[in-house]
Amino acid sequence: MHPVRVNGFVCKNPMEVNADDFFKAAALDKPRVTNKVGSNVTLINVMQIAGLNTLGISIARIDYAPLGQNPPHTHPRATEILTVLEGTLYVGFVTSNLPAPARNKFFSKVLNKGDVFVFPVGLIHFQFNPNPHQPAVAIATLSSQNPGAITIANAVFGSDPPISDDVLAKAFQVEKNTIDWLQAQFWENNHN
Amino acid sequence: MHPVRVNGFVCKNPMEVNADDFFKAAALDKPRVTNKVGSNVTLINVMQIAGLNTLGISIARIDYAPLGQNPPHTHPRATEILTVLEGTLYVGFVTSNLPAPARNKFFSKVLNKGDVFVFPVGLIHFQFNPNPHQPAVAIATLSSQNPGAITIANAVFGSDPPISDDVLAKAFQVEKNTIDWLQAQFWENNHN
Amino acid sequence: MHPVRVNGFVCKNPMEVNADDFFKAAALDKPRVTNKVGSNVTLINVMQIAGLNTLGISIARIDYAPLGQNPPHTHPRATEILTVLEGTLYVGFVTSNLPAPARNKFFSKVLNKGDVFVFPVGLIHFQFNPNPHQPAVAIATLSSQNPGAITIANAVFGSDPPISDDVLAKAFQVEKNTIDWLQAQFWENNHN
Amino acid sequence: MHPVRVNGFVCKNPMEVNADDFFKAAALDKPRVTNKVGSNVTLINVMQIAGLNTLGISIARIDYAPLGQNPPHTHPRATEILTVLEGTLYVGFVTSNLPAPARNKFFSKVLNKGDVFVFPVGLIHFQFNPNPHQPAVAIATLSSQNPGAITIANAVFGSDPPISDDVLAKAFQVEKNTIDWLQAQFWENNHN
Amino acid sequence: MHPVRVNGFVCKNPMEVNADDFFKAAALDKPRVTNKVGSNVTLINVMQIAGLNTLGISIARIDYAPLGQNPPHTHPRATEILTVLEGTLYVGFVTSNLPAPARNKFFSKVLNKGDVFVFPVGLIHFQFNPNPHQPAVAIATLSSQNPGAITIANAVFGSDPPISDDVLAKAFQVEKNTIDWLQAQFWENNHN
Amino acid sequence: MHPVRVNGFVCKNPMEVNADDFFKAAALDKPRVTNKVGSNVTLINVMQIAGLNTLGISIARIDYAPLGQNPPHTHPRATEILTVLEGTLYVGFVTSNLPAPARNKFFSKVLNKGDVFVFPVGLIHFQFNPNPHQPAVAIATLSSQNPGAITIANAVFGSDPPISDDVLAKAFQVEKNTIDWLQAQFWENNHN
Repeated sequence: MHPVRVNGFVCKNPMEVNADDFFKAAALDKPRVTNKVGSNVTLINVMQIAGLNTLGISIARIDYAPLGQNPPHTHPRATEILTVLEGTLYVGFVTSNLPAPARNKFFSKVLNKGDVFVFPVGLIHFQFNPNPHQPAVAIATLSSQNPGAITIANAVFGSDPPISDDVLAKAFQVEKNTIDWLQAQFWENNHN
Repeated sequence: MHPVRVNGFVCKNPMEVNADDFFKAAALDKPRVTNKVGSNVTLINVMQIAGLNTLGISIARIDYAPLGQNPPHTHPRATEILTVLEGTLYVGFVTSNLPAPARNKFFSKVLNKGDVFVFPVGLIHFQFNPNPHQPAVAIATLSSQNPGAITIANAVFGSDPPISDDVLAKAFQVEKNTIDWLQAQFWENNHN
Repeated sequence: MHPVRVNGFVCKNPMEVNADDFFKAAALDKPRVTNKVGSNVTLINVMQIAGLNTLGISIARIDYAPLGQNPPHTHPRATEILTVLEGTLYVGFVTSNLPAPARNKFFSKVLNKGDVFVFPVGLIHFQFNPNPHQPAVAIATLSSQNPGAITIANAVFGSDPPISDDVLAKAFQVEKNTIDWLQAQFWENNHN
Repeated sequence: MHPVRVNGFVCKNPMEVNADDFFKAAALDKPRVTNKVGSNVTLINVMQIAGLNTLGISIARIDYAPLGQNPPHTHPRATEILTVLEGTLYVGFVTSNLPAPARNKFFSKVLNKGDVFVFPVGLIHFQFNPNPHQPAVAIATLSSQNPGAITIANAVFGSDPPISDDVLAKAFQVEKNTIDWLQAQFWENNHN
Repeated sequence: MHPVRVNGFVCKNPMEVNADDFFKAAALDKPRVTNKVGSNVTLINVMQIAGLNTLGISIARIDYAPLGQNPPHTHPRATEILTVLEGTLYVGFVTSNLPAPARNKFFSKVLNKGDVFVFPVGLIHFQFNPNPHQPAVAIATLSSQNPGAITIANAVFGSDPPISDDVLAKAFQVEKNTIDWLQAQFWENNHN
Repeated sequence: MHPVRVNGFVCKNPMEVNADDFFKAAALDKPRVTNKVGSNVTLINVMQIAGLNTLGISIARIDYAPLGQNPPHTHPRATEILTVLEGTLYVGFVTSNLPAPARNKFFSKVLNKGDVFVFPVGLIHFQFNPNPHQPAVAIATLSSQNPGAITIANAVFGSDPPISDDVLAKAFQVEKNTIDWLQAQFWENNHN
């Protein structure tokens, strides 16, 4: 028998809860190796701190290599608020295309150390480090203990199994062999 | 002075509310001309029926041309449940890429008339009519009076103003001139 | 030991979830035999599609015989939005009697194919097919994965065990033997 | 221009709020004259105490004449918890008729002074004073600042305008002239 | 294996639910012995009535000795609404100290029998019986089935283990030995 | 006429929203002068970034002098998650005193750079910099766009007007003149 879950997680007996259920040591202080797109998201959510269950919040450190990015993605269950600890970031999000005939508006800013920016729930957003020589670091927090993350390119071109290339070719207005080429690439997850 | 809003909408005096505030005539019966990707979403939300405000639900008819699709998109504030009225649809959604090292799983089905399928809140999903000769029709409903819709290709490559091609080239693992070409296309909204 | 539940339902291990957890085949396409009051509600909720749990939406097909009705009822946990697929429906709901001295207002409409109408959460509402020769069909959706349904006459006069006839006689301003007669009838559930 | 509202109510400037916005004097101490069905509900909600807005709770005193009742009704937006201050009450509620083939179960209790009973959100419930000589008094509280109340007989037979007697005759399995007679009665609101 | 919980409580099979799951006999009628601070709170929450789970409400009787008090406390998960059944109460709450430079405002009232007062969620509040000869009684209800209670003095000076006296001395602007003396006292819980 | 508010804030026309509504420049980078208790909380909430309204999150930088503290306080509407950027912090929270006979448990940890700790909604918590020579800095985030903050000592002893010293003397088990002395002190807000 596999364990039963609340919000997908096992609920601990209240009498046995202690300070360690609300704590994660050395979680966010160390720079981490960035991946192929030049970033690394270290998210502390309900899987790292069980006491977060039902409390509706989580926190992350994001490392950016020079010219690295946290590529366009969404959080299906959370708004994000971010502040820059080191370096510079070019950030933005795209609004919903409703109501018609509204366009998808792109809102962007260049953020310096100490600036704060908000990415509303479910909208596609990214951060990019425009500096070719210096890394950047940000703290981001999310309004869910289990926000989820959907990196757009990975989900669209790197899903398992692949989405039909007929569908994607038409959706992205390219040839099917372009889709096939994209689906053959390695889509590395920058949440580790 | 512009009007003040609740959830973005003006709140009517309760004493003046009547049946018309809960009604929209001839909203979902007629097949509509499909667009470039071969679909047309007719959404009845709080902008069409003011009485929906705060009630957390909306409804849509979707028309699909032969080989047409409602391309990969998300609803930032709603789960969707869909049933096929006519024809056949190949549908699917991609899961979140958390927790690591989970992959983005693609869940799909071929739906026939009367089948029901669920697209959980915020996940990328699509519907495609695989029949080269017959149109298809579906009724979809959403768990918000103002669900929003983000067509992935349109938001990523057709935003106003455009997202930096440096960012997109790296995120999608293609050359910048491919991004430039994509951003020069016309990205038609299929919500009208 | 009986199984433990989330929202009353067993929570599946996320690693074992698949497309079938979001799917119900041939659920809503076929006309169904209507009951004594001339209707049949086919509801697809979390009991039919386990993946709906926590997602806050469900969908139903309603068949109406000529002169049939979905009798006055409420959904204790959901707003409903309905569209007519075939035929004509006379629909309505009654508002709350607060604040005093407000009356219970009755809001009604005759709906034709493609019209959309909203029944706010918890209010008494019904649909009636006024056509003596043709059936009608509607799709209704509800803002809960487990909306509940309380058919007023059934709950008041057909409960198990019966409500005291002293109480009901005074509440409905009729003789006790009228209540006794009503309680002796068969109150057929039109949700099957 | 009519005033704009939050949850239907005007939102006061926080700087001008004071203790009176959270207070109602002499609201629940005095026995009140009961109506035709032998009860009187004195509800203190957001219309009496503006500071309750968004806080999700309200409170009522209910007076019952000997053999009086608070007739079958629902609260569309609230669960109720009740305790008896004086006398005896026979109380009960009827469950939802889902899932099929579940019946509408009637759960009842005789309550004495100090007993506590819960009526879950949206379910039909009543209280009856079975004592032919003594009044009863209860305090009831509701999980909404604006719970609403729908007295079943009043909403079904006393709405303005009336519901079609064709519909009601079939729904309640009686002759149309019985419905017509019922609709001609005076349906007194016991919320004053 | 310890039992699994929903909201911390075991979820019963719906088929086995009955009226007793919504009922608590003789819960709130009897005056109870008051403690050292002169009060006694008898709370009926989800631990006494299992059927309250997820329903968002609970109810309490509070007895006050002459000059007794329900000392300054907060409910971390509930708004409270209170009415006086017997005697007189001096009640109040203190507002949040945001936004700067706002002060902590103290809102208070003297309540007589039948008066109603609201204590918004999370704010520090108290009730005091100013009458040196007569007891007082109130009914209080809370917008959660498990509101929690944090008596300020008990939590600050009577926690197990104690909070560092260095921290408390500075926070309360007193000498450390004053804190040590306070921490050596017996801090009696008035919720029994 | 004073402006009307949603959640207490004016709602902007969606067509006029731009990136500046989601941005605050140079908000959290600079060390700030600490107050009498040795800390300074710089909170970025809906009052600084209007686009946060309804999104349920906010973020703060907290500066701690050597031996400084963010004294015992609660957030009535938010859970907090905190990570240390510089220095060391001794942190803790006290649990609710329910259910009886549970004690108020004190959960504490010493946090170093990069450690993460959670303070559940509404519970009394503090942070203290135990280092006599070095300052400390933390980023804290809260699960509300308007979390509120109630510094216990300030609210209890520094409210405007003061709480009755009769009430406080008994609640805190001290002489009235001790309360009078405490109420005469200056209680400085560390949220600026």
